[in-house]
Amino acid sequence: MAETARRLVLASRPVSEPSPENFRLEEFPVPVPADGEILLRTIYLSLDPYMRGRMSDAPSYAAPVAIGQVMEGGTVSEVVASKNPDYKPGDKVLGQTGWQSHAISSGKGLRKLDPAAAPLSYALGILGMPGMTAYFGLAEIGKPKAGETLVVAAATGAVGSVVGQIAKIRGARVVGIAGGEKKCAFAKSELGFDECVDHRAADFPTQLTAACPSGIDVYFENVGGRVFEVVAPLLNTYARVPVCGVIAQYNAAVGVQDANWVPTLMRSVLSKRLTLRGFIVSDFYPRYSEFASEVVGWVKSGKLKYREDILDGLESAPRGLVGLLRGENFGKRLVRVAPE
Amino acid sequence: MAETARRLVLASRPVSEPSPENFRLEEFPVPVPADGEILLRTIYLSLDPYMRGRMSDAPSYAAPVAIGQVMEGGTVSEVVASKNPDYKPGDKVLGQTGWQSHAISSGKGLRKLDPAAAPLSYALGILGMPGMTAYFGLAEIGKPKAGETLVVAAATGAVGSVVGQIAKIRGARVVGIAGGEKKCAFAKSELGFDECVDHRAADFPTQLTAACPSGIDVYFENVGGRVFEVVAPLLNTYARVPVCGVIAQYNAAVGVQDANWVPTLMRSVLSKRLTLRGFIVSDFYPRYSEFASEVVGWVKSGKLKYREDILDGLESAPRGLVGLLRGENFGKRLVRVAPE
Repeated sequence: MAETARRLVLASRPVSEPSPENFRLEEFPVPVPADGEILLRTIYLSLDPYMRGRMSDAPSYAAPVAIGQVMEGGTVSEVVASKNPDYKPGDKVLGQTGWQSHAISSGKGLRKLDPAAAPLSYALGILGMPGMTAYFGLAEIGKPKAGETLVVAAATGAVGSVVGQIAKIRGARVVGIAGGEKKCAFAKSELGFDECVDHRAADFPTQLTAACPSGIDVYFENVGGRVFEVVAPLLNTYARVPVCGVIAQYNAAVGVQDANWVPTLMRSVLSKRLTLRGFIVSDFYPRYSEFASEVVGWVKSGKLKYREDILDGLESAPRGLVGLLRGENFGKRLVRVAPE
Repeated sequence: MAETARRLVLASRPVSEPSPENFRLEEFPVPVPADGEILLRTIYLSLDPYMRGRMSDAPSYAAPVAIGQVMEGGTVSEVVASKNPDYKPGDKVLGQTGWQSHAISSGKGLRKLDPAAAPLSYALGILGMPGMTAYFGLAEIGKPKAGETLVVAAATGAVGSVVGQIAKIRGARVVGIAGGEKKCAFAKSELGFDECVDHRAADFPTQLTAACPSGIDVYFENVGGRVFEVVAPLLNTYARVPVCGVIAQYNAAVGVQDANWVPTLMRSVLSKRLTLRGFIVSDFYPRYSEFASEVVGWVKSGKLKYREDILDGLESAPRGLVGLLRGENFGKRLVRVAPE
């Protein structure tokens, strides 16, 4: 084939904050599918905080990306050639084909998408992994009850925005935390949060305390770091803390907390009967239909609002990820690798 | 009445480790019950780690003992005079009448004991609060499964010894942690633990790692402090950590962990999908019969072994508590205030 494909490989491992120089753009011939395989053309590439973990070889729940390997990532693609009877050219699929313009797949692990049901990109966000993270973190651990107070950080992000809106549907009072006035205003006016506090404000702890006059019953932990230190003293007896991510710590070479903090935390776990529970969304993938049965309807009816932050071109992925880890995104961050 | 009663009141609050001087022995006339009341003579006084918390006015799940007030504590007593139709002289009762030789009670909150069913003192240990702590911490949070590895510290203590033995009944592999060779030998030969590691050994982390070749699925946290730091890296995916006490931290004016420890912990909570959950046994008091239906039989049949560490005389309570917090006790620590 004359067409040239492009991919971004991991060139080096970051020590603390990653930079675009940790990736290298490579060209390669568009591959040809063998029997049973299909050729995919990437339309959307998802950028997600977990990717920071894959860049590092520190012990984690998933293996790191090897140096020189294509960077891992969720994608929405179009089938352009098929030697697999289950797929035909034009099919749109959700996969995990990484930071590249084209990929070969056996078809295993792909999910066909119905372009009429929802915008294709939603499969990488509110109707996909981030949406399921929000849904099952609440259903299994957070369990917000009517009248309780739920706090979620990264309030306008892919997970936080869904967490807060579902908690509102369940009848909870929702307080968001976000970076900057614009995001806070959006969380309140568009997402319907009761309050949203700017974590960049000098008096953030005071503001958060004021926004939670009855304390906090559920803290959905998707950022880690200093925010949790401010939240912890406000947690009520029997509070639940689903832990799905600790973005603020992904880049940390060393911790920022003072030495009193763990004893204080463990004392609080005891005296307030707290539940801290980590979860990985992939554990819940077999329960996708349970998720879809509620969330698809809410999205269609407009009950759940969703904002995307789309960058153009595969080459924008490295700085897009670096910016995401800094909280620069406003909504679910994606790369449009090629037009639909 | 001619008889004189004695009580130990809280004289001052400790800054870090308490000392016997934090208490003051007082004499007072044996009180006379009014209509509806009974007079109790204390036989056994329980000494428990939670008492350190009551000496402090730091925020906790329970109010502190006021300066000048009788120190709080669980007791087994005999009714010596009654103006309450529900009680008659000679009745033995479990109560919370504190560090004193005599007390007046309305009868509320007391539980009558059957001296034929089990030794009276057991109501303060394996058949009482510590036993229920072990039982419900396992039933509700730890949930050890056959073949899993459970680790518990203070392995020969009131809670730890019961935790390990129940976990054995459930089919788990049990590794104890205790202070000194004598306690470790007892945990293995008498309590039937598979292994027991001496936390005073210089190579304690290495020994614990060797004793848990398949990692740790349940860590029953009843001591806190450095032991948890050694345990944490050994926790398996989906491990459960019921937190019922953090003795090692009760005295701590400042923490001992280094600043990297909280980020590491929170990363582990996420990547290993850990559950850390604090609980207070009194939340489970309404489920006493559920506990008794299993544990009373196990004690009677000898399936559960139980060791007591009994001091004589009310005046031994202050140094008895100080020693308990240092791990000096060998078995459930009690004070025999008066003969049965």
